[in-house]
Amino acid sequence: MSKINKQIILNSRPHGIPTPSNFSLIETSMPSIKQGEVLLQTLYLSVDPYMRGRMNDKITYIQPFVVGKPLTGGIVARVVESKTPDYRPDDIVQGFLEWSDYNVAKGSELRKLNPQKAPVSTALGVLGMPGMTAYVGLLDFGKPQKGETIVVSGAAGAVGSIVGQIAKIYGCRVVGIAGGKAKTEYLVHELGFDAAVDYKQTNYPEEIKRVCPNGVDIYFDNVGGDITDHILKLINKHARIVICGQISMYNLDQADVGPRNFWILLVKSALAQGFIVSDYEDRFPEGIRQMTQWLGEGKIKYKETIAEGLENAPRAFIGLFAGENTGKQLVRVSS
Amino acid sequence: MSKINKQIILNSRPHGIPTPSNFSLIETSMPSIKQGEVLLQTLYLSVDPYMRGRMNDKITYIQPFVVGKPLTGGIVARVVESKTPDYRPDDIVQGFLEWSDYNVAKGSELRKLNPQKAPVSTALGVLGMPGMTAYVGLLDFGKPQKGETIVVSGAAGAVGSIVGQIAKIYGCRVVGIAGGKAKTEYLVHELGFDAAVDYKQTNYPEEIKRVCPNGVDIYFDNVGGDITDHILKLINKHARIVICGQISMYNLDQADVGPRNFWILLVKSALAQGFIVSDYEDRFPEGIRQMTQWLGEGKIKYKETIAEGLENAPRAFIGLFAGENTGKQLVRVSS
Repeated sequence: MSKINKQIILNSRPHGIPTPSNFSLIETSMPSIKQGEVLLQTLYLSVDPYMRGRMNDKITYIQPFVVGKPLTGGIVARVVESKTPDYRPDDIVQGFLEWSDYNVAKGSELRKLNPQKAPVSTALGVLGMPGMTAYVGLLDFGKPQKGETIVVSGAAGAVGSIVGQIAKIYGCRVVGIAGGKAKTEYLVHELGFDAAVDYKQTNYPEEIKRVCPNGVDIYFDNVGGDITDHILKLINKHARIVICGQISMYNLDQADVGPRNFWILLVKSALAQGFIVSDYEDRFPEGIRQMTQWLGEGKIKYKETIAEGLENAPRAFIGLFAGENTGKQLVRVSS
Repeated sequence: MSKINKQIILNSRPHGIPTPSNFSLIETSMPSIKQGEVLLQTLYLSVDPYMRGRMNDKITYIQPFVVGKPLTGGIVARVVESKTPDYRPDDIVQGFLEWSDYNVAKGSELRKLNPQKAPVSTALGVLGMPGMTAYVGLLDFGKPQKGETIVVSGAAGAVGSIVGQIAKIYGCRVVGIAGGKAKTEYLVHELGFDAAVDYKQTNYPEEIKRVCPNGVDIYFDNVGGDITDHILKLINKHARIVICGQISMYNLDQADVGPRNFWILLVKSALAQGFIVSDYEDRFPEGIRQMTQWLGEGKIKYKETIAEGLENAPRAFIGLFAGENTGKQLVRVSS
């Protein structure tokens, strides 16, 4: 086995959109494990937009990353060596670990995956954090009812693509907002959305209006900014706005300005609910069971965009902000 | 009895802050009643900030007022003549009626008041729409818990002053925002608020921060605009923002701009809920029973600012936007 362990560290805090120079690939020595621990070889790592917030020197809902230390995130790994009876070599696990070829973890920090049930990469996507974000956010806060219209922004992403499909299962009219024709066609022709609007077209606000003739009952917001402003103009009485992400804001040094929106919430008796999925882990067993069933029945489809090699993780992360991914963006670190 | 009936009509739609010329006092002939109806002499009429929205030529959650027709709103009146067995002369009733000396109404549109239980003017304030707005808004959406900090804007108004006192009953730390020393002293010394901040002082944002050392768990928003922006910076995780009014916006031709706030709701897992109290009439019997009890026990106090004479109703209404009232602004039309 290799004697070195490559890692991606945060080299400097980004200002605005991250650049490759904010990251460094370093080599450290291979870690060894103590009683109760396992040594893990990374198979996939997850890059997610929320990580951008952790790169700032500011506590939001989670501690900032530390400059000079490895980034951490969702990882699927193979057990190489185990000093706990709960895991054996070649077990596949999921955990919240460092962006490294190898990690040491306690057994209690890991979740064992069953490769027979679903491809293990799905533990970072449709059957992992993004899938649970879609499930909990839509069902618990969006409360979809048959016949309602839902608009999903960031609709071709890891969360949005699942939100729209669950809403279809619940009998909603589903409209997705995404960037570019390839994505909007994917939403309508592969995922069964009722309509999709390309926000890169200048007339997109009129397009959204056109495809929502009965207004908007639920808005699942992954992006914020101008797109959100336009959709808020269309909400119906008692609309629910699920604030899942605000990717248009993540690279701003300070909050942007825009039309004040509390007035709209007032006159429409509408609800806006921000949420962080990690607060709802008690909902995950049901969510994973249900999503696994829907996957098996073909009611939910998913796509992965996979970058190859640990060294390409920063680029894959940066690409999220240019909308380079369709579905879940992963990095394959080892096969 | 008089043969003429004076009325206040909407003379023209206001642009910006209403002026006296937007209203006219006209004289019409005395109405007569049919079977099932009562003739009412107005005692008090209510002026409320939400009426400003109805003066625009635009449907919000309620139909606009019609130019050339009388304004309508909450009224307490005395039965002069009755052609329904449900009401007798000298009964005191509350209804949603025209700004007139006299009104004709069906018995079914009215609520009979018991002058022995509480002064009849309270049916337009603490035991009426504003009181129910405070009760339902705070309890159903704010969900106050013992030890939490609540900030109330428009705190010396008809709704805000009640919200703060109910929150005290629920064991919260209560901070009010109001304009001028007389109001802030009233909140602290007469109503028992823990602190009050005068937004007319330039350092008010720092003051709010100083009196909320543990952040803000509930924000009951009657005003919107800059004040709201400053309070949103202080909200805690899982904060509830009850959007009851946005008086700073009512006189604007189009929505103001301000810092985008969905990002704050996201990182704080916070809820913002707009509501219109008329959607929650099923909650009123409980609310009126409970508020009547608290009034009797001296746990809730209220103040009324009373203008004299129907002809002064427009001025009393306009004064709401300059913060001329403390507590409920009423117009006494007849004694």
